[in-house]
Amino acid sequence: MQGLDTLPTPCLLLDEARMLANIARIHGRLAGTGVTYRAHLKTAKSVEVARRQMLSPAGPAMVSTLKEAERFADAGVTDLLYGVGIAPQKLDEVLALRARGVELAVILDSVAQAEAVARASRPGDRLPALIEIDCDGHRSGVRPGDAGLLRAIAAALEPAAELRGVMTHAGESYGARGRAALEAAAEAERAAVVGAAATLRAAGHPCPVVSVGSTPTLMSATGFDGLTEFRAGVCVFFDLFQAGVGVCGTDDIALSVLATVIGHQPEKGWIITDAGWMAMSRDRGTATQAVDQGYGVVCRLDGSPYDDLIVIGANQEHGIVAPRPGSGAPTPELAIGARLRVLPNHACATAAQYDHYEVLRAGAVAEKWPRFSGW
Amino acid sequence: MQGLDTLPTPCLLLDEARMLANIARIHGRLAGTGVTYRAHLKTAKSVEVARRQMLSPAGPAMVSTLKEAERFADAGVTDLLYGVGIAPQKLDEVLALRARGVELAVILDSVAQAEAVARASRPGDRLPALIEIDCDGHRSGVRPGDAGLLRAIAAALEPAAELRGVMTHAGESYGARGRAALEAAAEAERAAVVGAAATLRAAGHPCPVVSVGSTPTLMSATGFDGLTEFRAGVCVFFDLFQAGVGVCGTDDIALSVLATVIGHQPEKGWIITDAGWMAMSRDRGTATQAVDQGYGVVCRLDGSPYDDLIVIGANQEHGIVAPRPGSGAPTPELAIGARLRVLPNHACATAAQYDHYEVLRAGAVAEKWPRFSGW
Repeated sequence: MQGLDTLPTPCLLLDEARMLANIARIHGRLAGTGVTYRAHLKTAKSVEVARRQMLSPAGPAMVSTLKEAERFADAGVTDLLYGVGIAPQKLDEVLALRARGVELAVILDSVAQAEAVARASRPGDRLPALIEIDCDGHRSGVRPGDAGLLRAIAAALEPAAELRGVMTHAGESYGARGRAALEAAAEAERAAVVGAAATLRAAGHPCPVVSVGSTPTLMSATGFDGLTEFRAGVCVFFDLFQAGVGVCGTDDIALSVLATVIGHQPEKGWIITDAGWMAMSRDRGTATQAVDQGYGVVCRLDGSPYDDLIVIGANQEHGIVAPRPGSGAPTPELAIGARLRVLPNHACATAAQYDHYEVLRAGAVAEKWPRFSGW
Repeated sequence: MQGLDTLPTPCLLLDEARMLANIARIHGRLAGTGVTYRAHLKTAKSVEVARRQMLSPAGPAMVSTLKEAERFADAGVTDLLYGVGIAPQKLDEVLALRARGVELAVILDSVAQAEAVARASRPGDRLPALIEIDCDGHRSGVRPGDAGLLRAIAAALEPAAELRGVMTHAGESYGARGRAALEAAAEAERAAVVGAAATLRAAGHPCPVVSVGSTPTLMSATGFDGLTEFRAGVCVFFDLFQAGVGVCGTDDIALSVLATVIGHQPEKGWIITDAGWMAMSRDRGTATQAVDQGYGVVCRLDGSPYDDLIVIGANQEHGIVAPRPGSGAPTPELAIGARLRVLPNHACATAAQYDHYEVLRAGAVAEKWPRFSGW
């Protein structure tokens, strides 16, 4: 076991106990609802994390890139959904994964994509596709009330390919504030796909899968009628943004960046560290929230936050640590070589800057878990 | 040679001709000035790029991490400056690199660091250190007029270690606008280190190296008196931020991200691509400039920009392409599966999302050059 005083910095710490508690909370949210948890693996991109996050070693799981699909397939995950609208050029890779025995489904929201999926299907392998529904105007998808387009996509898919169902992602729930708004976002997400499924079933398509998912709605949903699965990934680690949304506390955040003090600007109250934006990512998501956390909240080595101490600025390999503007909090005495931990704004973005997790168990590094990135 | 129509997306394209022209421009800026170009390798993190960027295969070069120092040392670079304030814990790695024959110098701005460097030095290896000077309040460094601190650091270093010189980085030049402001930033950068060197020399320290560097000041400096070297790295590729500063044109930008169209939201005029913030990075540096380029400027496959077409929003693996708000420009017809290229806000941040460059020569991919990341 390696102590936090000797690890090279910057590095990415994963508090295993917090992660396991978060996973238990996710699984508990859905226990008894009849809705399956489809683990989104885009946040962790780690086989070790995925095995703890998924309901079984084979899945179900969701990925955001085909590289993730390949890596997790290599690790024995066989129930996968590729959750980004399919490009026709990527269908060969989908077919190759399916030929290996991976039950990989794709998503789409246009007749052109449905035609491409139908053309790529084979008599022995009807490619399964879910129609993406736009529940809140966030990004992609068919409007749930656009029955004509839903039926046209279904008609273009079948019979050559398989219409597996419908799915949506309440991306706008990231901007919801307060319990009522979060519950409303979850209900809108549910109602959008349940309504679209009803439209398709009325046109003769069974539509067995009805899928929703986002971390804020998973943590807030009060009704699950008509759903078959819920997807989410950030909730495995949580982050300052989700704490700002109100669906976790800062003491649920399982990731932090270990940094070393490399300088001071005493007249400004600045502490300079070796964890800049390359170590934290450029994500400044909390800038739009009620409490702007800069590039992260600064904690002691035991994980307890200093009062109002944040990373107020960052260059590529320099973090500028200072009291939150206006807080009046003091700058703690941290000598050259001292160490601190920084909670990230966005788990997906910060983790992506590293090739492994330093897994903390009982306050010391017990394991190194590899993670991957790229496409 | 692979065409842009068959590469997996997203991927990172490097226009070799633009890069070589940028490098020629850098070398030309300093030709005849008596000032050496110390190539900053933090942007490219690629041996292939470094060999073209440096004045010789051995350097001089600068790095932002010790991992860069190791990788470039493996490739035969022997004249290196580690340009982030040294942490005492990193001195063992510095010593190990020097024991391999790498002339690696460190920087510092405190007596505590100088004492650590002196303690780590050996009779046969006096560690060379440059004192970092704060020329503009941007980040780290000793104020150039703080003669007491300069002398105290020098006294703590010597004779056990070696005071190699002084260095500064005009980070605030990134916010300069207009030729006069840029020239003033360059002159302030020059004057700060020349003044600090004079202070140290008056106290009996030879201070042979007097080093400055930033891309805006390198492109704008009109005087070089007293300097021995200039460092810069972004100028190898340039990016939209530097175009906003005014030190390059968008047609100098050598990096772009190749993306595929995966959807449309016609009522909003949106084109959805598979290049989200994971592909572009979260860097939004142009948001503070006169022209906000969103997550990037959208170009045709030949590299020519569409009129006022930018990435207005991004999720992890989704880019939202639309006309610049208020421009009245049309959304071009780009079918599912069509391809486009996106110029990045910040070359360092975008390149860091990839493990290799797809090197474009005469419009097709001629080579793949690996790059690395991490610490």
